[in-house]
Amino acid sequence: MKICRVEKPLVATNRIPGLEHKYMQVVRDGSTLAVAVDPVGAKPGDWVICVGSSAAREAAGSKEYPSDLTIVGIIDHWEEEQA
Amino acid sequence: MKICRVEKPLVATNRIPGLEHKYMQVVRDGSTLAVAVDPVGAKPGDWVICVGSSAAREAAGSKEYPSDLTIVGIIDHWEEEQA
Amino acid sequence: MKICRVEKPLVATNRIPGLEHKYMQVVRDGSTLAVAVDPVGAKPGDWVICVGSSAAREAAGSKEYPSDLTIVGIIDHWEEEQA
Amino acid sequence: MKICRVEKPLVATNRIPGLEHKYMQVVRDGSTLAVAVDPVGAKPGDWVICVGSSAAREAAGSKEYPSDLTIVGIIDHWEEEQA
Amino acid sequence: MKICRVEKPLVATNRIPGLEHKYMQVVRDGSTLAVAVDPVGAKPGDWVICVGSSAAREAAGSKEYPSDLTIVGIIDHWEEEQA
Repeated sequence: MKICRVEKPLVATNRIPGLEHKYMQVVRDGSTLAVAVDPVGAKPGDWVICVGSSAAREAAGSKEYPSDLTIVGIIDHWEEEQA
Repeated sequence: MKICRVEKPLVATNRIPGLEHKYMQVVRDGSTLAVAVDPVGAKPGDWVICVGSSAAREAAGSKEYPSDLTIVGIIDHWEEEQA
Repeated sequence: MKICRVEKPLVATNRIPGLEHKYMQVVRDGSTLAVAVDPVGAKPGDWVICVGSSAAREAAGSKEYPSDLTIVGIIDHWEEEQA
Repeated sequence: MKICRVEKPLVATNRIPGLEHKYMQVVRDGSTLAVAVDPVGAKPGDWVICVGSSAAREAAGSKEYPSDLTIVGIIDHWEEEQA
Repeated sequence: MKICRVEKPLVATNRIPGLEHKYMQVVRDGSTLAVAVDPVGAKPGDWVICVGSSAAREAAGSKEYPSDLTIVGIIDHWEEEQA
């Protein structure tokens, strides 16, 4: 799993039906931005654990859900310089 | 998921039957070009969300479809310098 | 999917039975060489679309086939400087 | 599989239920930090083998478990300069 | 699939049961070291084809086996400067 920081929510009105209305966040993984499905309710600035691969699907709610990056937990204590 | 920008359609007449006639787009992910299946009808210049891994398959229509990158949504507002 | 250029066929006599006798090509992905299963009959110099992840398996013929990179199409028109 | 070094345990109280209470470790893969599920009881400083992809799930206990990186073994002898 | 060179066997006595007693090799992929399950009996110095993703599992013997990198063949002729 990756250690990422939440930047802000992402809005995409025109989307495939399979994404449903789940919440998506822009997250920063080092110098790269990515989009993660957020079932835990993270806030901008939170350090989070993101899971990828096929595990991102069940983590987002079902094994059919089309996610390749899902927030699975908010880290209790993390300092920016560690990442 | 990755944040990519659509460059242009891609034509590949000689292809495996499993690809069917689905629309494919050349997308830019930072400095890298990739090819994504496009079920949402994106246009060149659009900023899109692309899903990879096994999730790209169901996002393209079925769990047997041979895609590893599929456009799942068009981002409503995105500035180039953010990516 | 990645945009790669076919370099040459690859011969590996000592191989696991699961690979069967399918044709394998050395392909160039930017500055990196990789090996792809080739069900479309590409020639050295061809620009091709390669699919990875679990999709590479069905693209190579069956969902049990042990490929993680399979050529799924030959691009009709592509200029080297685009890649 | 990757060769990583264990840094320290990671605490994330707010997490998805699917993660259960399994132990998670921060591991270093070269210059990158990642989070791995630890079913073997590694200690900080141990050199470990980490498996990714869908194999990380069964390695963590079941094919539904949402892990994309799991420690599968502690290496008997490894020198830091080798990694 | 990746083109790697075998470095040496890897010993990890404390391992999850799912790894069984299969042989593991340290392989070099460019400047990176990784660990691959070896069902073909490669020797140090051999240039080999390594498969990743979910295909690494069946290549290692069964679809439950927790490998994300498995040697699937020994390349007949390969010059170091090609990689």
